[in-house]
Amino acid sequence: MLVYGKNVAREILNSNLKIQEIYLLETFNNQELLNLIKRQNITPQTKKQSEMSLMTTEPHQGIIIKIDDYKFLDFETIKKDESANFVVVLDHIEDPRNFGAIIRTCECAGVDYIIIPNKGNSEITPAVVKTSSGALANVKIVKVSNLRNTLTNLKKLGYWVIGTDADGKNYKEIDYDGKTALVIGSEGFGLKHIVRETCDIIASIPIKGKVNSLNASVAAGIIIYEVATWR
Amino acid sequence: MLVYGKNVAREILNSNLKIQEIYLLETFNNQELLNLIKRQNITPQTKKQSEMSLMTTEPHQGIIIKIDDYKFLDFETIKKDESANFVVVLDHIEDPRNFGAIIRTCECAGVDYIIIPNKGNSEITPAVVKTSSGALANVKIVKVSNLRNTLTNLKKLGYWVIGTDADGKNYKEIDYDGKTALVIGSEGFGLKHIVRETCDIIASIPIKGKVNSLNASVAAGIIIYEVATWR
Repeated sequence: MLVYGKNVAREILNSNLKIQEIYLLETFNNQELLNLIKRQNITPQTKKQSEMSLMTTEPHQGIIIKIDDYKFLDFETIKKDESANFVVVLDHIEDPRNFGAIIRTCECAGVDYIIIPNKGNSEITPAVVKTSSGALANVKIVKVSNLRNTLTNLKKLGYWVIGTDADGKNYKEIDYDGKTALVIGSEGFGLKHIVRETCDIIASIPIKGKVNSLNASVAAGIIIYEVATWR
Repeated sequence: MLVYGKNVAREILNSNLKIQEIYLLETFNNQELLNLIKRQNITPQTKKQSEMSLMTTEPHQGIIIKIDDYKFLDFETIKKDESANFVVVLDHIEDPRNFGAIIRTCECAGVDYIIIPNKGNSEITPAVVKTSSGALANVKIVKVSNLRNTLTNLKKLGYWVIGTDADGKNYKEIDYDGKTALVIGSEGFGLKHIVRETCDIIASIPIKGKVNSLNASVAAGIIIYEVATWR
């Protein structure tokens, strides 16, 4: 995957994401990034403006980095991982910035696996790489074809499946000991009906204001950290 | 202030922000937004593409809305408000999306006042209006010239001033009863030294991963909701 721009480059150069190639515009002179590049075992390739423009139509600010495509795991990995006890399931998070922020939160909170559906969720785009702030290199993301079947399989593995949505039990009044699978709904639409009815319980964040919804990555962060406290 | 684009327009038309004017491109035909506009007591003005382009250089998608500039309050308002007991102080949040998401969280959590410095914080931009998702109409934002003096004055009013930063006490092990002022540091830099040393205590979110920092609006959300639970 090609990613571009100074901010993403800084995140990647500071992370342990695997870099394949670094392309720099011949006039590129950002000393901070050049110093970070020196620490890598890679000689950057110098390119003309016309060559850079052929690589991407997005604003690249003189730096393009080629990184390995993210390697998704499959559900079998969770099945075999007996020490795992905290899984976050994303029910179609579409905004790459929300997806990236949730990846970052999961890494910070020590979540064992992130599960996403293979259709309808944000892909791992350059915006996700940027927002996840390098965390992508340290999280395990599992792609599944059917969320409902996955939740049923998690139950069989001993996970308690907790959906997060409106009209549920106050998230502060739930015990999160034992294996926990937390299901986060999409922005604006919450959990899909078929997913919601498969959950063991619905956890809700009480809303005192009039706006009636938190940003998806903020809501996810609040509940993920509540569960993490029990770990 | 002029804001533009379908997504921002939808948020504004669904909020109780005061709308002054609505400008539509003569070919504008988004039925959802036209229905929302009908509910307002305002006749939209039809404009040619050339006229719209004179109003903003940003992509407007055929709709521009003029709203009242946000009216900041001053510190005297907090002084006089004896029922207030939860204040969030932002120590230079520069990213408009983080600022907007924090405004939205504060509204949902029932925060009484948001305090920002009059220099170095994100202004109320169209991106803030969009990300705050209409919450801007329901929050009270106070602008101050000196954060350190403001924290000292909050202490005199009986507030316990809690900074949020690394290397502090686990945020879950702190009592948040009584009047609480929560100070949120800027993205990447945390609290300014002079602000940090004025706080009564520093609260930290434990980080288990390698990335070592949460997104600023996610971190703010986690601690704001912890304090809100005590309300």
